[in-house]
Amino acid sequence: MSREKVDRAIASIKPISEEWVAKGYERLDALTKPRRSLGYLEEMAARYVAITEEERPVVGKKRVCVFVGDHKVVEEGVSAYPQEVTGLMVRNFIGGGAAINVLSRRAGADVRIIDVGMIEDLGEIEGLTERNVKRGADNIAIGPAMTLDEAMDALAVGIEMAEGAATDGVTVIGTGDMGIGNTTPASALLVAYLDVSTKDAVGPGTGLDDAGVAKKVVIVEKAIEVNADNCSDATATLAALGGLEIAGIAGLCLGAAAKRMAVIVDGVISTAAALAAIRICPAAKGYMYFAHMSTEPGHKKFFEQEGVRPVMDMGMRLGEGTGSAIAMQILENAIALYNEMATFADVGITPGA
Amino acid sequence: MSREKVDRAIASIKPISEEWVAKGYERLDALTKPRRSLGYLEEMAARYVAITEEERPVVGKKRVCVFVGDHKVVEEGVSAYPQEVTGLMVRNFIGGGAAINVLSRRAGADVRIIDVGMIEDLGEIEGLTERNVKRGADNIAIGPAMTLDEAMDALAVGIEMAEGAATDGVTVIGTGDMGIGNTTPASALLVAYLDVSTKDAVGPGTGLDDAGVAKKVVIVEKAIEVNADNCSDATATLAALGGLEIAGIAGLCLGAAAKRMAVIVDGVISTAAALAAIRICPAAKGYMYFAHMSTEPGHKKFFEQEGVRPVMDMGMRLGEGTGSAIAMQILENAIALYNEMATFADVGITPGA
Repeated sequence: MSREKVDRAIASIKPISEEWVAKGYERLDALTKPRRSLGYLEEMAARYVAITEEERPVVGKKRVCVFVGDHKVVEEGVSAYPQEVTGLMVRNFIGGGAAINVLSRRAGADVRIIDVGMIEDLGEIEGLTERNVKRGADNIAIGPAMTLDEAMDALAVGIEMAEGAATDGVTVIGTGDMGIGNTTPASALLVAYLDVSTKDAVGPGTGLDDAGVAKKVVIVEKAIEVNADNCSDATATLAALGGLEIAGIAGLCLGAAAKRMAVIVDGVISTAAALAAIRICPAAKGYMYFAHMSTEPGHKKFFEQEGVRPVMDMGMRLGEGTGSAIAMQILENAIALYNEMATFADVGITPGA
Repeated sequence: MSREKVDRAIASIKPISEEWVAKGYERLDALTKPRRSLGYLEEMAARYVAITEEERPVVGKKRVCVFVGDHKVVEEGVSAYPQEVTGLMVRNFIGGGAAINVLSRRAGADVRIIDVGMIEDLGEIEGLTERNVKRGADNIAIGPAMTLDEAMDALAVGIEMAEGAATDGVTVIGTGDMGIGNTTPASALLVAYLDVSTKDAVGPGTGLDDAGVAKKVVIVEKAIEVNADNCSDATATLAALGGLEIAGIAGLCLGAAAKRMAVIVDGVISTAAALAAIRICPAAKGYMYFAHMSTEPGHKKFFEQEGVRPVMDMGMRLGEGTGSAIAMQILENAIALYNEMATFADVGITPGA
C-alpha cells in the first residue's frame, strides 16, 4: 500500500515549465530596477511562478516538517552525542525551546515533529506526529538500514505530510531532521549518489575531532562495502544506507513536488534525502530550493555536481530545519518583490541596458 | 559647525568590547545545539551583545536610511542610465513601489529617504528628508567631487540621521544609496583605500557592456590621477573621490557607532562609504554588519583585505539598501535565537564535544 502511494506521487510529478519561468522573468524585467539586479532573488521568484503556475503567486501557509529517526550505527562511535539526545531534543521541540521553534516563529511557519524512526517510544504526546515505522535504523556498518518495505513506509509518511500540508493551504514547506548519528548515513548516501570519495564526503557532524572523523570515514566505507549488493536502484540505496527520517524527508520532497509546493531543503541531511528524491524522480528537483551550504564537506560536492546553489552560506551545521526557516523568509522576500514592486511603466522610466 | 559635529561623534566611538563578545558566546554555548553549530548567526548575535552591552539585548525599531546624490561624472558616459533616473527613483521610493520599500516592509523597518546631493530640486515633498548639501558631486574625472567643507556637511547629515534614529528607539539601522553613476566614485574610493588595481575594482554597475566597463576603468584612473594631491587623509579622499550620498552613509556609520547601534551596510556603494568611516575611525568597524557580496568586483577585494564577511552572497547589485533590509531580518533571527532558545540545563542534556 505504501508502494502504491509512493508510485502515485511520483507519477503525478511534472517538471516545472520553462515557459512559466520565462513568464516570471518577464514581469521581473519590467520592475523598477536594473535588469536582473536582484540576482538569485529573481531566480527564486521566477521559479516560484513556475512551481505554482500562477502569474501573481501568493505565499499561503508555511510549515517546517522535522522528521525524527535514530541510527544504530552510533554503536560504532560516530557521534559526539549519545542516542538518548534524540528524545530529549524532541521534547525540546515540543516545548518550543529549540532553534527550529524560534526560527519558525520568525518565519511565520508552523512546525510539525514527525517520529518516523525513533528508538525511544514517547507514547502519545501532544505536538508529536507519531508515524513510527521502525525503532531505529539498523547499523549500516553491518547491513542495510532498513528493508525496502520499511523505506516505502517511511517515504509514504513524508508524502502523507506533504498532502496534509497542501490540504491545509501550505504553499512553502521546509524540511528538517533530528537523529543522533545521521551525518553518517547522509554521507554514505552522498557517496552512493554522487561522484565523491568517502574521505571527501565525511565531516565532523555535530562535533567529532580529527580521530573521530577518521573513524567515521572507515565506518562509512564499511557501510558502502557491506551494502554493495543492496544498492540496485535509488530507492534500494536509500533503504540500505539511509535512515527512517531521511526517507521521510525524501518522501516529503516527492509529495511536495506532486502537489506543486515549493520545498526548502535544509542542510546536509535533508540534502541527502532530497538527492534520493531526485534520483528516484528527477522532475522533483525543480520544486526544491536549497537553504544553505553546511560545513559538512560532502554538501559542497552536491552543489558542485548537481548544478544548484544554496540560498545562504552561513557556516551552519545544526539541522532541525534551521536553514529552511531562514531561507523561507528570503523566498518570501523574493515573492514580495515580484508582486509588490512598481513597474517602469508605472513610474515613467525607460528601462536601461 | 559640521566639523565639530563630526569630531564629536568620532570622539565618542569606543571599540566594541571583546569581553562582551565573550559574554555573548557564553550564553550561546549554553543553548540547546552543538557548540557554534549556528555558524555566522552566532557571531552576529555575540557581536550585537557587545554593541548594545546588554546581556539580553532586544531589537528595538529598525530603519533603513537611503541617501541620495548625483554625480556629474556621468557626463563621461559611465552609467547605463541617465541622471534623471535618480529623481524618478526617489519619487518611486516615496510612492512605496521600489525594491527597498517592499523589503523594508518585510523587515518591519521604516525607510528614510535623504536628499544630500541631488541635482534635481524636488522641493518640499512628504517622505523626503531634504538636507541637500550640493546639487550633485562634481565630475571626479576633472577635479574633486566636493570641498572638504561640503564633505563635512554631508558627514554631519549622516550623523544627524543616526542621532535622530537613536532618539526614536532604533537599535538596528541599515544603509542605502541612490545615485545614478555612483559605482564610479565607489570604485575610486576602494582603489584609494584598499590594495587593489582599478581594473580589479571596476565592474558593470547597473549594466554596462565590456566596452563601457573599459571606459569606466579609464575614467576611474583619471579621477585618481587628477585628485592625487587632494587625498591627503581619509576624509580628504572621501571629499575628492566620493559623492554626497556616500559621505552621508559614512556619517551614518560613524553616528551609529557613536550611539552604539548596529549598522547593516548594504552593497558596494555603502561599503565604500563604510570603508571611509573605518579609515576615519577604525573603532567604528565593530558596529558594522555587511549585508551581502555584490557582483561588483571591488567588493570582493574589500572582504578579502578587511577580514570581514558578508551575511549573504546572492548576486545582488541594486543598492537602495535592499541587501540591508534582508540582512536585518537575518540579524533579528540571530538575536531571537540568542534570547529565546532553551539552555542545556533547561532540558537536561549534557553538552557534547
